[in-house]
Amino acid sequence: MLAVVLASGGLDSCVTTAFAAKECELAMLHVSYGQRTERRELMAFNNIADFYHAKERMTTSISHLAQMGGSSLTDSKIEVSPANLESKEIPTSYVPFRNAHLLSIATSWAEVIGANRIYIGAVAEDSSGYPDCRPEYYEAFNRVIDVGTKPETKIEIVTPIIHLRKSEIVKLGIELDAPLHLSWSCYKNEDLACGACDSCALRLRGFNNVGLPDPIPYAI
Amino acid sequence: MLAVVLASGGLDSCVTTAFAAKECELAMLHVSYGQRTERRELMAFNNIADFYHAKERMTTSISHLAQMGGSSLTDSKIEVSPANLESKEIPTSYVPFRNAHLLSIATSWAEVIGANRIYIGAVAEDSSGYPDCRPEYYEAFNRVIDVGTKPETKIEIVTPIIHLRKSEIVKLGIELDAPLHLSWSCYKNEDLACGACDSCALRLRGFNNVGLPDPIPYAI
Repeated sequence: MLAVVLASGGLDSCVTTAFAAKECELAMLHVSYGQRTERRELMAFNNIADFYHAKERMTTSISHLAQMGGSSLTDSKIEVSPANLESKEIPTSYVPFRNAHLLSIATSWAEVIGANRIYIGAVAEDSSGYPDCRPEYYEAFNRVIDVGTKPETKIEIVTPIIHLRKSEIVKLGIELDAPLHLSWSCYKNEDLACGACDSCALRLRGFNNVGLPDPIPYAI
Repeated sequence: MLAVVLASGGLDSCVTTAFAAKECELAMLHVSYGQRTERRELMAFNNIADFYHAKERMTTSISHLAQMGGSSLTDSKIEVSPANLESKEIPTSYVPFRNAHLLSIATSWAEVIGANRIYIGAVAEDSSGYPDCRPEYYEAFNRVIDVGTKPETKIEIVTPIIHLRKSEIVKLGIELDAPLHLSWSCYKNEDLACGACDSCALRLRGFNNVGLPDPIPYAI
């Protein structure tokens, strides 16, 4: 079976790719949407796709999320909030309705190339409060795919790590021999991970809880 | 109330804009996705937005639908099928899962600017068989918006002409004083409407059934 795998190049998508690779042939998809560390993410994506000898690969760019702003990830006028893993607030890095754009591109591509699954590394519990990372969101989107594509098209979104905590994702990645050293998570820098943003803090806590060192280099 | 209006510049979106203008302030949104007659559509969109003195206006471009192909609307290797209004087949102009891309952009923008409605001129009955033009598709997408945006965000998709036949849309447009002379529907040409593609055939039949001439110029 052919599966589209949405991959940023981060830890979660790296482990999701490893999971998909056990079950399917891979059509790897990366979407640049004007996020600050795009160049570094794309490098991580390509390294992971190379590692798994992906059958198909597509990288594409969308400009409208950066054009409309509203997130510290795409709008340089908004500060990246310091990590606060206990907060219930939606952080400034929330990109309004972002995952719908990614899933729409994945679904169109899956329909064109005949893939039957879309893997995405969404994480609910440890997700810093993004509304579009919860299981009910993917259930709702699966219904949109079901009614919004050709009758003969069968595509299902699969979220293999949605219920895992970051430490469990690290553990699963190690079990699956995922190339964690090729992944990139930092929201702030492109050369050395900052170690201080939400995304770095979550990742480091995950490795720390497993008692293993993170194989990527940090500035602090 | 502020409403995002998704408008191609065609007859249906022209009448939908007229409908929205009776109820809301307008934030007009046009998405170019590599369709063949984009230059002409964009002109129609801007003329309609000018006519209604839209409060906000955004035009944006997405390249991925043309990049992946699969439709005669975006892929010059696929022929535009001749009109067949009786066929139950999905025509070659179907762009896989297109409306999800448009609705995702509209939803993100609505969340950023604080709009509470999204108007789209989808038409089910007379729609040439596109799966993403049916009421259940919009119900499903409303659920995705509900679970996939911030808790305080309230956005609803409104489809005012979804149950109308083309002739009823023409009639409604005339009742609402919609600037039908500024709209553009043809899939094939940019100077004079071809009069022969699915979209022209539907439009002409609509005016014909009402017993009125279409105010735009045709090649045949």
